[in-house]
Amino acid sequence: MLELYDLAGAEEDRRFSPFCWRSRLALAHKELPVRGIPWRFTEKDKIAPSGQGRVPVLVDNGRWIADSWAIANHLEDSYPDRRSLFGGAAGRALSRFYNNWTDTVLHPGLLRFALLDIWRHVAEKDKDYFRRSREERFGTTLEAFAADRDQRLEGFRQSLVPLRLTLQAQPYLGGEAPLYADYIVFGAFQWVRAISDYKLLAADDPVAAWRQRMLGLFDGLVLKAKGYPV
Amino acid sequence: MLELYDLAGAEEDRRFSPFCWRSRLALAHKELPVRGIPWRFTEKDKIAPSGQGRVPVLVDNGRWIADSWAIANHLEDSYPDRRSLFGGAAGRALSRFYNNWTDTVLHPGLLRFALLDIWRHVAEKDKDYFRRSREERFGTTLEAFAADRDQRLEGFRQSLVPLRLTLQAQPYLGGEAPLYADYIVFGAFQWVRAISDYKLLAADDPVAAWRQRMLGLFDGLVLKAKGYPV
Repeated sequence: MLELYDLAGAEEDRRFSPFCWRSRLALAHKELPVRGIPWRFTEKDKIAPSGQGRVPVLVDNGRWIADSWAIANHLEDSYPDRRSLFGGAAGRALSRFYNNWTDTVLHPGLLRFALLDIWRHVAEKDKDYFRRSREERFGTTLEAFAADRDQRLEGFRQSLVPLRLTLQAQPYLGGEAPLYADYIVFGAFQWVRAISDYKLLAADDPVAAWRQRMLGLFDGLVLKAKGYPV
Repeated sequence: MLELYDLAGAEEDRRFSPFCWRSRLALAHKELPVRGIPWRFTEKDKIAPSGQGRVPVLVDNGRWIADSWAIANHLEDSYPDRRSLFGGAAGRALSRFYNNWTDTVLHPGLLRFALLDIWRHVAEKDKDYFRRSREERFGTTLEAFAADRDQRLEGFRQSLVPLRLTLQAQPYLGGEAPLYADYIVFGAFQWVRAISDYKLLAADDPVAAWRQRMLGLFDGLVLKAKGYPV
């Protein structure tokens, strides 16, 4: 049985790490059963065998693998008889840009809308750690960081143009069916949905239609996960 | 013999359309001989059979195909025995985001550095058309549009982060060898190189190292094309 250390909030079933969602969806895509282990920011000791302090961490037959990209590659290489996450070598190489775009464009954009709401939902014992580490990183209070989010909404939606045009032309980033690239990008929206009711997308946005399709995947794994309506 | 209508400047051998470069590189990738036909902005009549007024336009055995993405797909489908541009169905679907990112993020970013230099290099008979149409589109003079480019350089380089991180990890966007995604993005740099000596990239930027690898492709097709040193 595979095990996945998965970031949890104050409620154990509120899972809001975009990186953990990438791994959960990759595991579901390959139809690999997994035991999810709720993990909190301050429980670094529990994942120490992975050699670092962040989740997701996958434990596969005694082997510890950290980092969502490494986990996706491990699953693809170790379970080649299951449905491919990348659709071949070219697809794997081409997926890397999605990973980097999501990490460096989409996530920072979303953080403005989500950071304060994350703090509200983290476990009590994590609250000080989270506030201190994030306020140090961003050089401002969580409240000030989020204060002008309404003014930022149009710019954020504008940053989705490449995604929007792509999803106007095809149902998934991977084409007719989702691939790991879809899970990378969708993980970001699932993260926000888990902790915030902020209306990020206009109702008629093709990105919203794609998000709806993604929410329907895997027999409710995504839709039933604790979160707010979108 | 295939024919490609290719945007030319005042000098017939200065080819500076990023979209035409995508098609030229796609044809070279598939090792398909092509007759390039220099074309100027105001020669709409010459490509009228394509049903629209922009290049690239490919003529393949009497069939007229406009739009670089449609041309790439036509080549992939019509010449399946040649080296693949996409590396399979997943790669084709995943390439679309590169197309949209380049068109809506990279190109607008580059225009600030290139627009005035383009005007300097277009054919005499195109100069009025180019200035008028672009000044109308951007609501300012070409000179004012380009005036603050030094101040924009850092922001432009920042916009390349997803590309930079990807090319730090692998030699090409397509992995170990270039795919159409590489030609999409590289077309933008070849465009600027054709008409401007502005130093867009720091010497130690992994994007610059990739650009150098791209310049070396296809026996000098790219490197020997008229342009400025990078």
